[in-house]
Amino acid sequence: MPLSPGPLSPDELRRIHAYWRAANYLSVGQIYLLDNPLLRESLRAEHVKPRLLGHWGTTPGLNLIYAHMNRVIRANDLNAIYVIGPGHGGPGIVANAYLEGTYSEVYPSITRDAAGLRRLFRQFSFPGGIPSHVAPEIPGSIHEGGELGYALTHAFGAAFDNPDLLVCAVVGDGEAETGPLAASWHSNKFLDPVRDGAVLPILHLNGYKIAQPTVLARIPQAELDQLMRGYGYQPFHVTGDDPERVHQRFAAVMDTVVAEIARIQRQARAHGDPSRPPWPMIVLRTPKGWTGPSVVDGAQVEGTWRSHQVPVAQIHDNPEHLAELERWLHSYRPEELFDADGRLVAELTGLAPSGNRRMSANPHANGGELLRDLALPDFRDYAVEVANPATTFSEATRVLGGFLRDVMTANPTTFRVMGPDETVSNRLGALFQTTSRAWNAQIVDGDDDLAPDGRVMEVLSEHLCQGWLEGYLLTGRHGFFSCYEAFIHIVDSMVNQHAKWLKTTRHIPWRRPIASLNYLLTSHVWRQDHNGFSHQDPGFIDHVVNKKAEIIRVYLPPDANTLLSVADHCLRSRHYINVIVAGKQPALNYLPMDAAIAHCTRGIGIWDWASNDHGPASRSEHAAADGMPDVVMACAGDIPTLETLAAVDILRRHFPDLKVRVVNIVDLMCLQPDSEHPHGISNARFDALFTADRPVIFAYHGYPWLIHRLTYRRTNHTNIHVRGYIEEGTTTTPFDMVMMNNLDRFHLVIDVIDRVPSLGARAAHVWQDMVDARIAARTYTRDFGTDMPEISNWTWPY
Amino acid sequence: MPLSPGPLSPDELRRIHAYWRAANYLSVGQIYLLDNPLLRESLRAEHVKPRLLGHWGTTPGLNLIYAHMNRVIRANDLNAIYVIGPGHGGPGIVANAYLEGTYSEVYPSITRDAAGLRRLFRQFSFPGGIPSHVAPEIPGSIHEGGELGYALTHAFGAAFDNPDLLVCAVVGDGEAETGPLAASWHSNKFLDPVRDGAVLPILHLNGYKIAQPTVLARIPQAELDQLMRGYGYQPFHVTGDDPERVHQRFAAVMDTVVAEIARIQRQARAHGDPSRPPWPMIVLRTPKGWTGPSVVDGAQVEGTWRSHQVPVAQIHDNPEHLAELERWLHSYRPEELFDADGRLVAELTGLAPSGNRRMSANPHANGGELLRDLALPDFRDYAVEVANPATTFSEATRVLGGFLRDVMTANPTTFRVMGPDETVSNRLGALFQTTSRAWNAQIVDGDDDLAPDGRVMEVLSEHLCQGWLEGYLLTGRHGFFSCYEAFIHIVDSMVNQHAKWLKTTRHIPWRRPIASLNYLLTSHVWRQDHNGFSHQDPGFIDHVVNKKAEIIRVYLPPDANTLLSVADHCLRSRHYINVIVAGKQPALNYLPMDAAIAHCTRGIGIWDWASNDHGPASRSEHAAADGMPDVVMACAGDIPTLETLAAVDILRRHFPDLKVRVVNIVDLMCLQPDSEHPHGISNARFDALFTADRPVIFAYHGYPWLIHRLTYRRTNHTNIHVRGYIEEGTTTTPFDMVMMNNLDRFHLVIDVIDRVPSLGARAAHVWQDMVDARIAARTYTRDFGTDMPEISNWTWPY
Repeated sequence: MPLSPGPLSPDELRRIHAYWRAANYLSVGQIYLLDNPLLRESLRAEHVKPRLLGHWGTTPGLNLIYAHMNRVIRANDLNAIYVIGPGHGGPGIVANAYLEGTYSEVYPSITRDAAGLRRLFRQFSFPGGIPSHVAPEIPGSIHEGGELGYALTHAFGAAFDNPDLLVCAVVGDGEAETGPLAASWHSNKFLDPVRDGAVLPILHLNGYKIAQPTVLARIPQAELDQLMRGYGYQPFHVTGDDPERVHQRFAAVMDTVVAEIARIQRQARAHGDPSRPPWPMIVLRTPKGWTGPSVVDGAQVEGTWRSHQVPVAQIHDNPEHLAELERWLHSYRPEELFDADGRLVAELTGLAPSGNRRMSANPHANGGELLRDLALPDFRDYAVEVANPATTFSEATRVLGGFLRDVMTANPTTFRVMGPDETVSNRLGALFQTTSRAWNAQIVDGDDDLAPDGRVMEVLSEHLCQGWLEGYLLTGRHGFFSCYEAFIHIVDSMVNQHAKWLKTTRHIPWRRPIASLNYLLTSHVWRQDHNGFSHQDPGFIDHVVNKKAEIIRVYLPPDANTLLSVADHCLRSRHYINVIVAGKQPALNYLPMDAAIAHCTRGIGIWDWASNDHGPASRSEHAAADGMPDVVMACAGDIPTLETLAAVDILRRHFPDLKVRVVNIVDLMCLQPDSEHPHGISNARFDALFTADRPVIFAYHGYPWLIHRLTYRRTNHTNIHVRGYIEEGTTTTPFDMVMMNNLDRFHLVIDVIDRVPSLGARAAHVWQDMVDARIAARTYTRDFGTDMPEISNWTWPY
Repeated sequence: MPLSPGPLSPDELRRIHAYWRAANYLSVGQIYLLDNPLLRESLRAEHVKPRLLGHWGTTPGLNLIYAHMNRVIRANDLNAIYVIGPGHGGPGIVANAYLEGTYSEVYPSITRDAAGLRRLFRQFSFPGGIPSHVAPEIPGSIHEGGELGYALTHAFGAAFDNPDLLVCAVVGDGEAETGPLAASWHSNKFLDPVRDGAVLPILHLNGYKIAQPTVLARIPQAELDQLMRGYGYQPFHVTGDDPERVHQRFAAVMDTVVAEIARIQRQARAHGDPSRPPWPMIVLRTPKGWTGPSVVDGAQVEGTWRSHQVPVAQIHDNPEHLAELERWLHSYRPEELFDADGRLVAELTGLAPSGNRRMSANPHANGGELLRDLALPDFRDYAVEVANPATTFSEATRVLGGFLRDVMTANPTTFRVMGPDETVSNRLGALFQTTSRAWNAQIVDGDDDLAPDGRVMEVLSEHLCQGWLEGYLLTGRHGFFSCYEAFIHIVDSMVNQHAKWLKTTRHIPWRRPIASLNYLLTSHVWRQDHNGFSHQDPGFIDHVVNKKAEIIRVYLPPDANTLLSVADHCLRSRHYINVIVAGKQPALNYLPMDAAIAHCTRGIGIWDWASNDHGPASRSEHAAADGMPDVVMACAGDIPTLETLAAVDILRRHFPDLKVRVVNIVDLMCLQPDSEHPHGISNARFDALFTADRPVIFAYHGYPWLIHRLTYRRTNHTNIHVRGYIEEGTTTTPFDMVMMNNLDRFHLVIDVIDRVPSLGARAAHVWQDMVDARIAARTYTRDFGTDMPEISNWTWPY
């Protein structure tokens, strides 16, 4: 076949093709071979793994792109990483990391010789070995394969604030059907060509998913072209199944797009012009399972969905399959690629970049290596004055906003705040005193706080916020995600995958810890009374606590100062998922800053000032057993704390002799046994706080069952009675919301009366009063449309 | 201002504009007014609600579309419903339902007079009244506002198999930024113009979200036009802020698109040509908060994000605001719109369609009215023979596939199966003996089972599958969604919203029950050993059980026959979310069909054939107390059942005197108290099954804490020891997976030894043997890459 015209000389073409053959050979070897890694002898069934697990279909395309990225990296000294949407293509990325030496550097037992090759092949998708997907174990990856949809958001997250970085992001045509991916093309409206790096999306159309074609491969190319232009890109199409022609065409296109990206950046930076250019992208259309078996058992395999996993699989039962595998492996001519020792031949090793320019060794893909502490102002400077507990009001998140503003100012290139159009709604608007929203679409007169170089990322997509932030953290930076509590469930599955990444990477020595993923969940269930039922769901906490205890932290600061203390702690932490739940509405301040710090540090504690179960001389937790309470009023969350204190006030007035202890929980994981969670408290301490046998009325922010789940092993568990959100809500008043869920002060008093038999004759009257008070509150609300003033303006009288 | 050219005569224009003014007036009235609904007296502060909660910004646009839809419905006798993406626009939809009389029909107290108007206004977003969003309470709605992203998928779901239905779907430009919405434009590749109805998407660009502009409103119109063409639509642009011009232009475009849809359908149906046409869609660009206050307190409100909620809000404190509100209300000239009694004037009432042609009264928007039972074949005909328990193998989902195939055949227009490209992978391929995948993109030689009129909906987007199915169910049809267990979390938040819809509509008398949403979660955590950690997550069960007990059902059938029985039950049920978890790999059959039916009907029961805690004469549950077991081995899920039986086998051999009771749970909700869930069993029955004081070793499919949460109130709870998935996984063998999570047979035996002190001298030796067996199993696996044959081929010996 005559050479196609293109930028590659015959020798370059021959060598890049050989490099691709080597990567493909190593990929097939990983999927199949236990032994005989260089085919130095005839292939026998015992050389082949008994269970064949892996995905071939996407791999040759990934290898092609890798080889051509290597070429332009070397030619242009690019600083590039590779984000692999088709995460099934694990063997290809392992193969490339091995070919360029990184793999042996981080896993010294996988040597660059025949013995190492044998181990490389054997470990893949093998018990005790490595996963079959692009996984944390693979150097160069910031992106686990498996759940699809996040390649582009991760890529953009990596590119933000990395002006010299080029992120090559391969989007599989299966992944392209997902919602998150479909939205994430619009990330180009949030990227500043002056300040940020570049993302080169390569839409790889191999045409098939597991069992059927893909949508984007089956619409006319003109329609696909319009779609990409509509998304704001300049598409370059490369289509083919003849390797040489594709090499030439792809090389030409790669040269063009790399030059175009350089031109865009030069122009933007020379003139300080951040306006959004039509960034180039590539549509690469090549056969699925390219270069693999064409026809197996009479059915077309290459170029169809049948090559998705293992294209020829009956190796141990069918001699023809064994022969087909051997033909396939030999088709790459491994004897030309690897020398007698099993090393890649010298003329090919030079095709990879060297040192940190290797995509598998680029430190951006091991973000912890680049991570630096945030410069944090002293959060105590933002404290609200609290002369007496529960007498003044703050909007806790607004107080936090001032702190976050100064964190932003002090860290102008390594900190971003994400939020789905809710930053101001969530009272974090102080951020806009120091920065703007990132926005690289049209800006018109009258727009506020929009700029291409803004550092608050707002888009009405929790998926994009989450994906950008993950990409940003995974490449060694810091961030903060504020979200309406109910809608954070939109990213449940993304959180799962990130939690799995964190869990796995804790045990990979060469992976350095990254900054924690910090959530502020606000506009929460108890103050979504105006948006109603659809906005009320506190279940994200339940979701995250199923993940590994070592990476999950949940905080429910009850007021502004505790929120400041918790937020500071979270911003300093590493490799966790921190969930902070805090309200944005005016709410009582309970603790002055010093007390707030102490309380947050303990995570859980008796609020002596609200308790009367001991004398002033013994106001310490350890002395509590001396003055055993009649009832423990526990609370976690700002609204439960308010209702608990109000209930305690009522109890005090009606039952002055009743010994009431108030326990407040900031760090929810304290409730678990210390054997289950690093923050868990000992049974002795739990018993000291909650007693061994007194009733505990526990007012909790979320679904009440979680408290039972966390405490079921505790001594006094059978006496713990939990109130929380029981999935009752609508558009109504704040107090009606707590009444609908039996979390209101009057009901908490009823709960105490029901569980403390010693209250005497007055109890029946008070019980009746409480029922009447609930009826009165509801009647007033339904008549006047507001809560009774004495309820909504209630303050703690002590 | 001279009239723009257009299809409306001056009189038509005047009247449609008056109708729009009426809807806008009623919308503003709902947001603001407690009294004085017709402005018959000067507006005073006491006429205005004390809390102003609602969203004005999107409402005038929704009202405009509604009025113009009414016009084309009447002109063409269309059968149409209205799916409202901008769900905040509740007041507009209520206003229109009221104007056309439906509202008073379903809520007779809201009369069509001044008194009714007063009640209509007062109830909106008011305690004891109706939510502020497009909610289940609103006739004509199939779509709760709040969480955004699902308007188009719901619309397509409604259109499937409804050839005469036109679904007008308004997509807000905020919603358009979400992932699910971005992907759902591609739904046109899954719609058959011959068989299905039509969706008319109207992208309503009012330019702003809560606090900032929207992406699609700030890209050049040419780019947006390309985007829509790339998605496969023919866009028509209507832009303006002058009402008369917009009326004329919009009317002209509506005439064009309705004619174009009719032409497409005529042509497709006349020639039986299902090929995908470029369906028309409309881009409507009008100001946010159009016709509302232009400037308030010196800031531009109309046409900006400041009109998102309540544009002038200090009514009670600021006389100027009160005056502005009064001017605003008067600007609609209510005295021309409503007669002396407060009724819409006669010349306007005729602008609405009548009877079921009213979008608010269309029965498709109250799907339960149209719902008919499925024609179900007898599921017993698909039973696998089970002569002896645990001696033969089936792939449970493959057996189910045969049943589903015949359900599909028997219900050719009212049943669909959804799956993200996993129908064959999940062993439901028998469906393709009777239908194909729905596919209206290119089909090429070699493609299997693709057709425009296919009834299996496969796309690599759980969001689309879920949204289509919701739309299909909400309009009165049936469906079944099979999904990889781990990735169903992708739709956690959609499930929340659907659960809320079901919960709320149970208490709305005129809403008829709809078919249940049935999930089959397969390729589950214990048999995702080949895809690894990213594919392993059983937490969806935890997610759904937070929703209201009255609508949640969770089933863990242990084998093929129980799966058939459960599936039949779920397909007959109404208004539930049914979650079925079942494996697809070859697994033991335990129960013949009669026993399977009995077991599933009970939901939980002792497996006498596997137990030895009583003599053959007393093989009934109630007799169990006669022969108290030494240990109860409980199991829920196919793999836990296998491991439990294997452990019982080991126990029998080593401790023949040990009395072991095996309890299997199919219906997980049985474990809850009967006070908590309708399927919950009484404490007496629970104690009879689990004893009051014997150790219970509970092998569970998912996260073990859930079992504690469900049983914490039970007598014997402190003796329940649960094994389940503890978030340990990777690419390894099936048995290694259960070992990593301590759910394996050997560990269950160890658990028994640890908890039954009476086992005597042999216990220490057996304990040691079990540890050795685990080491041997792991060593073998790491050496050979497979499980030891005696483990993977294990069968129950009794």
